[in-house]
Amino acid sequence: MKRPVIAIVGATGAVGTELIGCLTRRNVPVASLKLLSSARSAGRTLSFRSQPIIVEELTEKSFSGVDIALFSAGASVSRKFAPHAVNAGAVVVDNSSAFRMDGDVPLVIPEINARRIKEHKGIIANPNCAAITAIVPLWPIHRSNRVKRLILSTYQAASGAGAAAMAELVESTRAHLSGQPFDPRVFPHPYAFNLFSHNTDIDPATGHNDEETKVMRETRKIFEDDALAVGVTCVRVPVLRAHCVSMTFECERPIGEEDVRTLLSDAPGVRLVDDRVRNCFPMPSDASGQDDVLVGRIRRDFSDSTGHSIAMFAATDQLLKGAALNAVQIAEHLL
Amino acid sequence: MKRPVIAIVGATGAVGTELIGCLTRRNVPVASLKLLSSARSAGRTLSFRSQPIIVEELTEKSFSGVDIALFSAGASVSRKFAPHAVNAGAVVVDNSSAFRMDGDVPLVIPEINARRIKEHKGIIANPNCAAITAIVPLWPIHRSNRVKRLILSTYQAASGAGAAAMAELVESTRAHLSGQPFDPRVFPHPYAFNLFSHNTDIDPATGHNDEETKVMRETRKIFEDDALAVGVTCVRVPVLRAHCVSMTFECERPIGEEDVRTLLSDAPGVRLVDDRVRNCFPMPSDASGQDDVLVGRIRRDFSDSTGHSIAMFAATDQLLKGAALNAVQIAEHLL
Repeated sequence: MKRPVIAIVGATGAVGTELIGCLTRRNVPVASLKLLSSARSAGRTLSFRSQPIIVEELTEKSFSGVDIALFSAGASVSRKFAPHAVNAGAVVVDNSSAFRMDGDVPLVIPEINARRIKEHKGIIANPNCAAITAIVPLWPIHRSNRVKRLILSTYQAASGAGAAAMAELVESTRAHLSGQPFDPRVFPHPYAFNLFSHNTDIDPATGHNDEETKVMRETRKIFEDDALAVGVTCVRVPVLRAHCVSMTFECERPIGEEDVRTLLSDAPGVRLVDDRVRNCFPMPSDASGQDDVLVGRIRRDFSDSTGHSIAMFAATDQLLKGAALNAVQIAEHLL
Repeated sequence: MKRPVIAIVGATGAVGTELIGCLTRRNVPVASLKLLSSARSAGRTLSFRSQPIIVEELTEKSFSGVDIALFSAGASVSRKFAPHAVNAGAVVVDNSSAFRMDGDVPLVIPEINARRIKEHKGIIANPNCAAITAIVPLWPIHRSNRVKRLILSTYQAASGAGAAAMAELVESTRAHLSGQPFDPRVFPHPYAFNLFSHNTDIDPATGHNDEETKVMRETRKIFEDDALAVGVTCVRVPVLRAHCVSMTFECERPIGEEDVRTLLSDAPGVRLVDDRVRNCFPMPSDASGQDDVLVGRIRRDFSDSTGHSIAMFAATDQLLKGAALNAVQIAEHLL
């Protein structure tokens, strides 16, 4: 495939904006770019490589002539329109959860399993953003010394819920600081200087929310290891656009913090930020706008005296590696 | 002891203010209240039960006639002045880390080990605020079915670093929202819409910061269980005054989420907030101003298939149960 026609579904959203930015910045060869959105946002003009492009309304007929369709408009839009894109001959890279666990849909982080891309039957799924934050730095370790148990607590930014959620964080904080009331619209709870359990639906039987279930299942699928035991707690914190994950993991064989540091020091997509003297570790403010997953606080897990467990902390730009960048990397592999 | 003379060291600080509030609200019988601070804050007038009290400068001679001295001005002030208070005949309830691990200093959460109060030799220590958040709801479980492994990730508020840190969160956020630069003074990192690893010193050998070491050691001391294995990651989040803790723990015998809910449903100092249908769980905004530790998200830890492990999430007002309230409860036991 050379110089493809690329479509972006959800072009006016937070991830859509970053998809345009990644295509530009990475000099992806594009014959033409089609920007698609709901009727509400259609008609707006966006810019790609200094050319104005008018956003068109997404319809079943939008994909004629499209080679690669980058979807980022939520699972229901993907479920409804991705089949039309595939029927029109496009390869779909889907950022939603709609198809991630389908047996014949590759779930891809290029640094880990790019080889699965060619097995696609029209759709390739982009993993959950919290999962990506944990999985990218865990993979080099897992490959060397199998991770058999993994416990995660997340610190997730507003951006994971889209541009409206980011605006709600800003506006509710502004209201709080000026003593004004604010009625949340996107989230069910106040967000200014507050945090809350992730706002996805909760399985009444297990008590796990959908975000947690995604992280557990997607980690196993990407690692191709059904026996990997994962426990996750997903929390929304008042941060704008970078997710963090606190992780404790147990390996099959003994492992030391120096082993982990060596494994991660030249791992693709990973940057070590692990300075004990200056107290510099991964932070959302440093991860924002960066391609790499930052990882640090690598140390022995003191809850396991057997020497099999390590604790560490990672941060990633949720809109870049957590979404748009990973999708564009997949598109690059398709070319 | 009846109608004691009480002194508050650090009276103008964030915890000092709450100490005055707790003494008032809980109708603690007080013959007179002495407010002490550094020279910088001395001379200010505060109000106690509608009476104005002039804050005096803390000196070695401040404790003459004082029965109970509530210290909350940092470890170095406690180390320097608590011995003078004890020599003058006062009982010190110290909110700092100065004496917590001393063998002859009881480390007390009244709901757990009030019986240790009478063993004091002049000083009783108030535990670390992140430790309190985890320990209060864990204790009823531990007592019933020993917790042998504990993994914590914290979400800690500005208030843990005092009133200046709370002001820095507000001011830096205000600056961020108006596009103005802001130079952090209290913390080493930007705080507006950001989070960072806890700002205490880091042991270069283990990579654990002092806050994490406190949580590990204090949990074992309060539970009187040196074999309890604890792993902790302490993180500062942009929240004003309530700490949260995500915990995963493994018990000696199998345990189900209903067992935990039953054990916690009438536990002192604990309030269950665990509504899966409405997605209502412990949040800083609900914990702020409340005496109880809120606990919820009680569910099986999916990283352990043996049925011995549970995950849950707690929130507590760092200034109340995390500091001032616990100290005043100890003072009440002394009376």
